[in-house]
Amino acid sequence: MQALQLGATIGILGDGQLGRMLSQAASRLGFKVVTFGPDAESPAAQVSLASKVAAYTDEAVLARLAERCDVITFEFENVPASSLDYLVGLGATVAPSSKALRITQDRVFEKSFAREQGVGTVDFRAIDSLDDLKAAVAELGVPSLLKTRREGYDGKGQVWIKSTDDIAEAFNSLNGRPSILEAKADFTREISVVAARGWDGTVSTFPIGENHHVGGILSTTLAPAQIAAETVARAHDIARKVLEGLDYVGVLAVELFVLPGGDVLLNEIAPRVHNSGHWTQDGCLCDQFEQHIRAVVGWPLGDTTARCTVEMTNLLGADILDWPRLSAEARARLYVYGKDDPRPGRKMGHINRIKS
Amino acid sequence: MQALQLGATIGILGDGQLGRMLSQAASRLGFKVVTFGPDAESPAAQVSLASKVAAYTDEAVLARLAERCDVITFEFENVPASSLDYLVGLGATVAPSSKALRITQDRVFEKSFAREQGVGTVDFRAIDSLDDLKAAVAELGVPSLLKTRREGYDGKGQVWIKSTDDIAEAFNSLNGRPSILEAKADFTREISVVAARGWDGTVSTFPIGENHHVGGILSTTLAPAQIAAETVARAHDIARKVLEGLDYVGVLAVELFVLPGGDVLLNEIAPRVHNSGHWTQDGCLCDQFEQHIRAVVGWPLGDTTARCTVEMTNLLGADILDWPRLSAEARARLYVYGKDDPRPGRKMGHINRIKS
Repeated sequence: MQALQLGATIGILGDGQLGRMLSQAASRLGFKVVTFGPDAESPAAQVSLASKVAAYTDEAVLARLAERCDVITFEFENVPASSLDYLVGLGATVAPSSKALRITQDRVFEKSFAREQGVGTVDFRAIDSLDDLKAAVAELGVPSLLKTRREGYDGKGQVWIKSTDDIAEAFNSLNGRPSILEAKADFTREISVVAARGWDGTVSTFPIGENHHVGGILSTTLAPAQIAAETVARAHDIARKVLEGLDYVGVLAVELFVLPGGDVLLNEIAPRVHNSGHWTQDGCLCDQFEQHIRAVVGWPLGDTTARCTVEMTNLLGADILDWPRLSAEARARLYVYGKDDPRPGRKMGHINRIKS
Repeated sequence: MQALQLGATIGILGDGQLGRMLSQAASRLGFKVVTFGPDAESPAAQVSLASKVAAYTDEAVLARLAERCDVITFEFENVPASSLDYLVGLGATVAPSSKALRITQDRVFEKSFAREQGVGTVDFRAIDSLDDLKAAVAELGVPSLLKTRREGYDGKGQVWIKSTDDIAEAFNSLNGRPSILEAKADFTREISVVAARGWDGTVSTFPIGENHHVGGILSTTLAPAQIAAETVARAHDIARKVLEGLDYVGVLAVELFVLPGGDVLLNEIAPRVHNSGHWTQDGCLCDQFEQHIRAVVGWPLGDTTARCTVEMTNLLGADILDWPRLSAEARARLYVYGKDDPRPGRKMGHINRIKS
């Protein structure tokens, strides 16, 4: 693709904090931004030239977006892949592709794809019935983790099976939705790689973040992670295989498990900028948001060298009410997402603390 | 003043690149932003929740701004002081004050104010007639610099008088506007201090920038400047005296001349964030834009420690057309202002290069 000129317009499907930070990065590079999402005065709309408030399947509004934008991207992995296809059918340039979205929207497709690329995952079985689940638990053992194939995030739509007595209740709790049973990974660390690929196939990886989750939600990322060089190399290799296998354009994140012996397994692919990459805003000259914009507009990918070590901490729900203390911290930068209601677990902001 | 809560609304008078970067900083801290200026789709409006397009003296629109905003600030020193008074009269909270604006909008008031604070300036005379100018040139000698008292910037509205033969032509070139004659300063460096003061009187100064002008327009700033500690102390002392003398709330910049003997003279006060402070975006955790927002909303002032040495270069007019090369530089960050027409001398963007 021809590099977009200054002043070109970028459409973003999704209007949350990731869209907000993508929009700000795009503006900084001289692009105009139109957001598309269900909420008026959304986090992304607050900082963008224009916003279209509509359901992701509203074809009339999608058509107006296609007409107005030079490239269209997304910040939210549950945008319907069919909406991207619709935009492409109208002649719009869309990145990442609906193929990347279709594969990563389904945990069975995602893990099967990873294995096809030679990337290890935990053992898994597709589950369509109670009998499937009984057979899968017999094969994978307990504890094992039952998840919906689609639309789970932040620990939602998943349940641990700790003994064969749990099988029926676990199956019923997902209301018969197509599911996946995953073997438990006895990992020592959870790390993630945020990486980008341009239209020309160039790949760029950020330094690795080490993640700590609490209650299924990311709590902190420390980056660059203090891990063996060999683990770094394996993780970056996985990111590259995933990017190339998906023929991906833009930034994605791969969440990985590091096993005691040093093996690295793919846990999940997020086909978008990712919470575990927020540290790059203060840790790199080109952060993940700018990198995504550079990739989708056909600009050269930016400088991902780490300037320092950063600890990113999510501010969930009422955490944000602590802003008077957080805003007074030295060696730290506070990011607030512009959401009104700090309900429990909701991502309200984050703080990047410089550690060295 | 009580610190503004997250989600409060900030009004910004002026809609250029400074308003754009102020707006982005305000959003990052969780505030909503309404800009006010003469142009639709202005640099600031492109990244803000809402914009009011009106003349600065439009009282009906100012009144709507006052109603909507929890605090109102400005990015442009030629906003009419009377518009600020009008807003205050309606009960709006405005910072900086119209007093600061009145003094700094007039070069004679500004230099007189500086001297009252014990801050040195070049020698000067107020000029209201050709006879005034003849007498002043006789006293201050040649070369000396004739400027309009009001509204000059980037070298506009000023003319050098190199010999007594130039007097009549110089006087006529300013069309009889009230003027000031300034003695020439034989300075060795031009430096500037960007500094902030909160509602509670707290003062915070950024490291000093060394500025290079070309054709009267800032070309580059290198910061922190490599100058004697004593000069740094004098410069910071001047910034503090100016902030306190103006009872100022917000960020301002003082442009200073360093003389061969080490004396430091005040050249100009900019009652706003300033081009010579753009380096702080990549050189400090709290940049000048965030600092201004913190000051006017009553938050604690941020961390101004330098992280590195930065060289900021303005991209004027057609310089911006070099974006394909500029965007590919490592150890640099590009900022583009979202203006369409790259006419000669127009500030289109800047680039911050990390030097160490």
